[in-house]
Amino acid sequence: MKQITIIGVGLIGGSFSLDLKAIYPNASVFGLDQNEEHLKIAQQKGLINAAVALDDLAQMDLVILAIPVDATLKLLPNVLDEIGDDTLVFDAGSTKLELCNTVRQHPKRRNYLAAHPIAGTEFSGPDAAIKNLYKGKTNIICEVELTAFKLQEKALELFSQLGMRIRYMNPEAHDKHIAYVSHLSHISAFMLGKTVMDKEKNERDIFDMAGSGFESTVRLAKSSPDMWTPIFEQNKANVIDTLNEYINNLNHFKELIESDNFAAVYNEMKSTNYIKHILKGLQ
Amino acid sequence: MKQITIIGVGLIGGSFSLDLKAIYPNASVFGLDQNEEHLKIAQQKGLINAAVALDDLAQMDLVILAIPVDATLKLLPNVLDEIGDDTLVFDAGSTKLELCNTVRQHPKRRNYLAAHPIAGTEFSGPDAAIKNLYKGKTNIICEVELTAFKLQEKALELFSQLGMRIRYMNPEAHDKHIAYVSHLSHISAFMLGKTVMDKEKNERDIFDMAGSGFESTVRLAKSSPDMWTPIFEQNKANVIDTLNEYINNLNHFKELIESDNFAAVYNEMKSTNYIKHILKGLQ
Repeated sequence: MKQITIIGVGLIGGSFSLDLKAIYPNASVFGLDQNEEHLKIAQQKGLINAAVALDDLAQMDLVILAIPVDATLKLLPNVLDEIGDDTLVFDAGSTKLELCNTVRQHPKRRNYLAAHPIAGTEFSGPDAAIKNLYKGKTNIICEVELTAFKLQEKALELFSQLGMRIRYMNPEAHDKHIAYVSHLSHISAFMLGKTVMDKEKNERDIFDMAGSGFESTVRLAKSSPDMWTPIFEQNKANVIDTLNEYINNLNHFKELIESDNFAAVYNEMKSTNYIKHILKGLQ
Repeated sequence: MKQITIIGVGLIGGSFSLDLKAIYPNASVFGLDQNEEHLKIAQQKGLINAAVALDDLAQMDLVILAIPVDATLKLLPNVLDEIGDDTLVFDAGSTKLELCNTVRQHPKRRNYLAAHPIAGTEFSGPDAAIKNLYKGKTNIICEVELTAFKLQEKALELFSQLGMRIRYMNPEAHDKHIAYVSHLSHISAFMLGKTVMDKEKNERDIFDMAGSGFESTVRLAKSSPDMWTPIFEQNKANVIDTLNEYINNLNHFKELIESDNFAAVYNEMKSTNYIKHILKGLQ
């Protein structure tokens, strides 16, 4: 890897830069971003060596797209148009089906690997970039068989050096499952934050009474709407399914409280405690 | 403080023991608990010097109730019957109105301070007890004017040594506000955990795809049903109000997605991002 371009020098792209510069100390890492300010910060922080344009991509060994999923949908075909025959391209988006469908017939489809590194924080922009963000995290790869074998190998070696574990999945399954374990968590946190803020016009009351439990549950409500709006748009059907189930469960729990069926309230929580064992496996 | 009894030697009571033993190295800390196993562990771990019974309470300088709120409701009047004239009693429960009403006419009401230290973890039992759990945390005191001045002073000195900041509130306001910033967070986390577990019969899918965002949002679903069921029971009306508002907000968000109004979806999240500034104040 000698020449790398990161498209979108925010939290995700910037964190890739930091690790790639450590793994390939002789590589040049370039940045491409609509946001001039982000490009400037990324350069000042040493995340990128310089800015590049789309028509520089032919010389790249690797191009990573780390921009909102609606922008990826528009830009990936253009990126594939521009790259060289041996350039590896992967994205990091949280939705995979529409993107995979969009580029399925592209002549350079075999240069592209559909990836979703399950990593991030609630912060965004180049200032949020951190080292080792991907270490120990899962990277979901979709339709791996549509990527050229040589480029698969190159990507896997890179992910292995980043410390990621790989899971293969078709894009439909990815989008369905991720709606439950990621997209729904974000909506539940955003709406929790909204509910409490709407009620508590006097901020001091929240400030004084909220403990670490509230802070943890609402943390994702700090996330970027620029990133999340197009995710909910692209994964609309699955997100609505998860929301319906979540709302049904909340309504059922509320009805148990209303009808003073506290034995059942207890049992709902007791059986959900099993999440302890699942989360233990995550660490 | 020479003689202290902790009623309920779990996470909350055990953590008080650890700090009290540091603050008053010459004090004897006793334990009272229905759970013989917990008493044994608490003694082995040095949380308490010995077990005591209700009729030993007359000699205590301080009695702390750290048991589920339904048990507190039954036991507090008996505790007040048994204590000496100068014994300070406080509880640590997450609901205050019904408890304050229950003991309002008790002849020893002035020995009792209604407290709610906003501190805890998702773990429970004496093994979960940790040092400095209360440091930097808020302690809400209700109806302080009903506690004897001398005992108020004693309690405030103790809370100050624990590093807590004090807020005064009436029990109605406490129960209403805490429903938003604590009780609702627990239900939202429990139902998120339930929704995902119900869907994902194959645990590996959760295990592989869930990242730190899901883990943070669902963390409170590990909490003890023994502790939380009576809280929801005692704060039923407020909890139902918060749940109605939360469910309405979720339904509204879902309808915005269904009607492809993604500009409004964006705005909902953007305005909720303000929670960043509120949470910053919490740290």
